[in-house]
Amino acid sequence: MSTNIVTAGFLIIGNEILSGKTQDVNLASLAKKLNLAGVRLMEVRVVLDIESDIIDALKAMSLRYNYVFTSGGIGPTHDDITTECVAKCFNTALHTDANAYAVLTDFYKARGEELNEGRAKMAIVPVGAELIANSVSAAPGFKIHNVFVMAGVPKIFNVMLEEAIRLYIKGGAVMISKSIDLRVTEGKIASQLKEIQKSISQVEIGSYPKDGYTQIVVAGYHEDLIDKAIGLVAMLTSNQD
Amino acid sequence: MSTNIVTAGFLIIGNEILSGKTQDVNLASLAKKLNLAGVRLMEVRVVLDIESDIIDALKAMSLRYNYVFTSGGIGPTHDDITTECVAKCFNTALHTDANAYAVLTDFYKARGEELNEGRAKMAIVPVGAELIANSVSAAPGFKIHNVFVMAGVPKIFNVMLEEAIRLYIKGGAVMISKSIDLRVTEGKIASQLKEIQKSISQVEIGSYPKDGYTQIVVAGYHEDLIDKAIGLVAMLTSNQD
Repeated sequence: MSTNIVTAGFLIIGNEILSGKTQDVNLASLAKKLNLAGVRLMEVRVVLDIESDIIDALKAMSLRYNYVFTSGGIGPTHDDITTECVAKCFNTALHTDANAYAVLTDFYKARGEELNEGRAKMAIVPVGAELIANSVSAAPGFKIHNVFVMAGVPKIFNVMLEEAIRLYIKGGAVMISKSIDLRVTEGKIASQLKEIQKSISQVEIGSYPKDGYTQIVVAGYHEDLIDKAIGLVAMLTSNQD
Repeated sequence: MSTNIVTAGFLIIGNEILSGKTQDVNLASLAKKLNLAGVRLMEVRVVLDIESDIIDALKAMSLRYNYVFTSGGIGPTHDDITTECVAKCFNTALHTDANAYAVLTDFYKARGEELNEGRAKMAIVPVGAELIANSVSAAPGFKIHNVFVMAGVPKIFNVMLEEAIRLYIKGGAVMISKSIDLRVTEGKIASQLKEIQKSISQVEIGSYPKDGYTQIVVAGYHEDLIDKAIGLVAMLTSNQD
């Protein structure tokens, strides 16, 4: 039973997340959408708007995973340094992308506004990058090598993500996950659960204490084995009652 | 103006966060509480319940920051492998801590339950670790070297965090942060904002697009400079109206 596992890392860039001012919600939506596309999210890093930190994290994850997604730092202001960092990471020059420039010009023209210097910055991408369309606010994300550079604002992050998945992602096996809630504390069933995990090692059994119950999640790439494990877990419960 | 900056990293351990099933909320509360204690959260990593991934991340962050906090993976079940990984990271043996064992025995006795094998596992810590009390569910966290190992369940994470800060954390300068909301899109003020950032380089000026307005956050260690920057940003707005 050989399984084609495709992996991804996620780099969240921004002081506002690390200060606790903004609650990240992109991680969960990325994880779910990737999973449906046959890509497993293996690691997330959150870094400050510091060039060397961004580049180090990007290099490490780009080497390690099939795909890397970034969020944040591609807006018009001075604290948006992601695009520059990505170019440095891949030793690539920056240039104004003609298509991105045209899209932005049209977008602001339609609103009776001008494409000033700050806004024009959003048309600058690394040479060789391919654009990721942004149907919300025009300024595109981009793909270079295995890295997808996207906005941090959740509404924009999500439309870019859908576009990125549609155009560029080649997923592998889709991880299946089923859960069952048990009305016991996890300490009561720990040793039996361990035995079930040992006997069906191809699935991952997770145990999560909740208020008044325990949630058991069984994940893996073979539904028959997952169902088997869930069945054993369900029986184990009734033994305890 | 020399400033004593104390730093921290945060390692979130658990498949449930990376699958998108559970939304992390510990990052924001950690960031805020650390900041009040004079510690700046510099980086967060989220990893799966995989031994080598946990150890690698722990080593990297433990070397790089003054303090590292971990959440998740210290419960009674087979998928709770954090304690083992921390011991391996620091080449330390594991042992049952007598105090932790006593606390757990009392806790379960009072509930008419027994301290079975799974539960007794929660009294096992690396040799040399100091306990972090858990007033919610007894099973303690622990500190070893500069690493604080804590539970993932937010209610428990928070009581452990308060305890850890009270007992062990020596903070430095407290980062001050003020914000002002502008009724312009950030693209309009990008170049002026950049000038203000250049003229007061000791503060960090962040610009965050929100629905219908832009939030400018000015952070740093010198309140007079922050106020000066906020003042300049406020004027810049009225120029635009």
